[in-house]
Amino acid sequence: MESFRHDELVPSRPKERLEMVRLVVAVGVTIGYGKTIVMDLMEEWKEVDFILISRSGTGLERLTQSMREKGFTRNITTHTIDLTDISSLEGALSTVYNGVSGEEYEGIYLFNISGTLDPIGLVSTTNNLQQIRQSMDLNITSFTYLSHHFLSHFTKNLEVTTAASRDTPKPISADAKIFMINISSLCGILPFQGFGAYCTGKAARDMFYRVIAEEARLLEPKVVTLNYAPGPMYTEMVEDAIRSDFAPIRDMYLEMKEKDSFVKPKDSVAKLRYILDAKKFESGSHIDIYDELSY
Amino acid sequence: MESFRHDELVPSRPKERLEMVRLVVAVGVTIGYGKTIVMDLMEEWKEVDFILISRSGTGLERLTQSMREKGFTRNITTHTIDLTDISSLEGALSTVYNGVSGEEYEGIYLFNISGTLDPIGLVSTTNNLQQIRQSMDLNITSFTYLSHHFLSHFTKNLEVTTAASRDTPKPISADAKIFMINISSLCGILPFQGFGAYCTGKAARDMFYRVIAEEARLLEPKVVTLNYAPGPMYTEMVEDAIRSDFAPIRDMYLEMKEKDSFVKPKDSVAKLRYILDAKKFESGSHIDIYDELSY
Repeated sequence: MESFRHDELVPSRPKERLEMVRLVVAVGVTIGYGKTIVMDLMEEWKEVDFILISRSGTGLERLTQSMREKGFTRNITTHTIDLTDISSLEGALSTVYNGVSGEEYEGIYLFNISGTLDPIGLVSTTNNLQQIRQSMDLNITSFTYLSHHFLSHFTKNLEVTTAASRDTPKPISADAKIFMINISSLCGILPFQGFGAYCTGKAARDMFYRVIAEEARLLEPKVVTLNYAPGPMYTEMVEDAIRSDFAPIRDMYLEMKEKDSFVKPKDSVAKLRYILDAKKFESGSHIDIYDELSY
Repeated sequence: MESFRHDELVPSRPKERLEMVRLVVAVGVTIGYGKTIVMDLMEEWKEVDFILISRSGTGLERLTQSMREKGFTRNITTHTIDLTDISSLEGALSTVYNGVSGEEYEGIYLFNISGTLDPIGLVSTTNNLQQIRQSMDLNITSFTYLSHHFLSHFTKNLEVTTAASRDTPKPISADAKIFMINISSLCGILPFQGFGAYCTGKAARDMFYRVIAEEARLLEPKVVTLNYAPGPMYTEMVEDAIRSDFAPIRDMYLEMKEKDSFVKPKDSVAKLRYILDAKKFESGSHIDIYDELSY
């Protein structure tokens, strides 16, 4: 992870803006990167209704207040749901889309932002089974169920009779109305010492969204998935990691802080939004903030 | 998945056999591929002690009996453990290595074979959260904890002070004494419709073993991991999948059965054993039974 020039990172905005009416469902929004995503989309996409989910009721209140203070007048619905609590998840999610019709919107987006780095440490010493399970519950199980729940509300199945080959073309983004965004990580495609649970969770999420991309040809309206690695950012998540006992990761982050080589959350969201607006990525792909785009 | 000639699949056995004294720990051994692995290693490696884990006590008894009937006289220890029951897993595993010293063995192997295909179906219709969680518990959480538990018994940490770069060479297999084998799948690297949970679990396992391969330079004795995709086999697991409601997967397997294009478990184990004996694979890599080997 090396330093970079911010002006190289985010392509200039496409000239023709589309003021689509959109619905954004976002999970893990009250701190860090999630909060930045919501505030950015509110300002840039404008005609957006939000369904915001977090385990922090206070955080959701504060976020809503910030949005209103910036003059945002469209709908904001908030739901206080703890995604680590699997036993209550079905009930908690069951009312989230009550009264919400996909037909009102030209674009519907699910942003899966919540996740945990814990437990950090070598696999050989990471001996807390409950902590391992909580990590898998939050980073994988909740994530997959949320995605199922979202799809089951906003899509219909076409008739499933034969196994479509993986070789047939993926749905083209330009047709798509529904976008599911997994906030992934470089850890989803490369292994890192001390990040056993985190890497495992991110790799799992990436694969799950690749499967949905395969299944999308059996759904309508068209669904597109994206695994976006937002880059290393100095958020609350990294502050927690710096407090961990595992020296290699603490030292890596402290060095990045010293060298000012973290990505600014605003820049990272700007690139993600550019990718979504351009609609030229292959569904199911993994795109890193450092990747050069040909569009 | 196309048909192949079995004689092309398994390279001929290396001429010099090493009659090492080995310990094999294997999980998920009473049916299907796991049973074949145990019976093969018993006959081919000979000087092996076994620690066998399964949820089926009866299955373990039958397996032990079969091994004794074939004249196998070395140690067989069995443990009836349900890997889907996370709340009892720590306690159940705590005594597994009692009295077992790694120093008695020239090679120590962990075979992670257990897993589930369920729930099968499109993500948009797979709405049973408890079934999703059971899949993640068995395919991922138990798998990671078993791996941790194995490492913590048989390895010591070297001092962890700085983050080793991913660019430094991986441990060379020839040095290794400890081998951890994840029974993976093509589904671990490619998405398949209807296999959302299964693909997700296999991708997670592959990444977890890539992380251990990165961490191995901080451990002694040397540890090597392998993600082995054994090929499609007509085992109990596939019989279950054929009974599922999801037509594309049922039809795919029925067609493979008709065309006789399944891999024979014995051939698949023979190739796995060849790879392990040759000790020339890169630690953490994913090797498919159909991959051509250069050794």
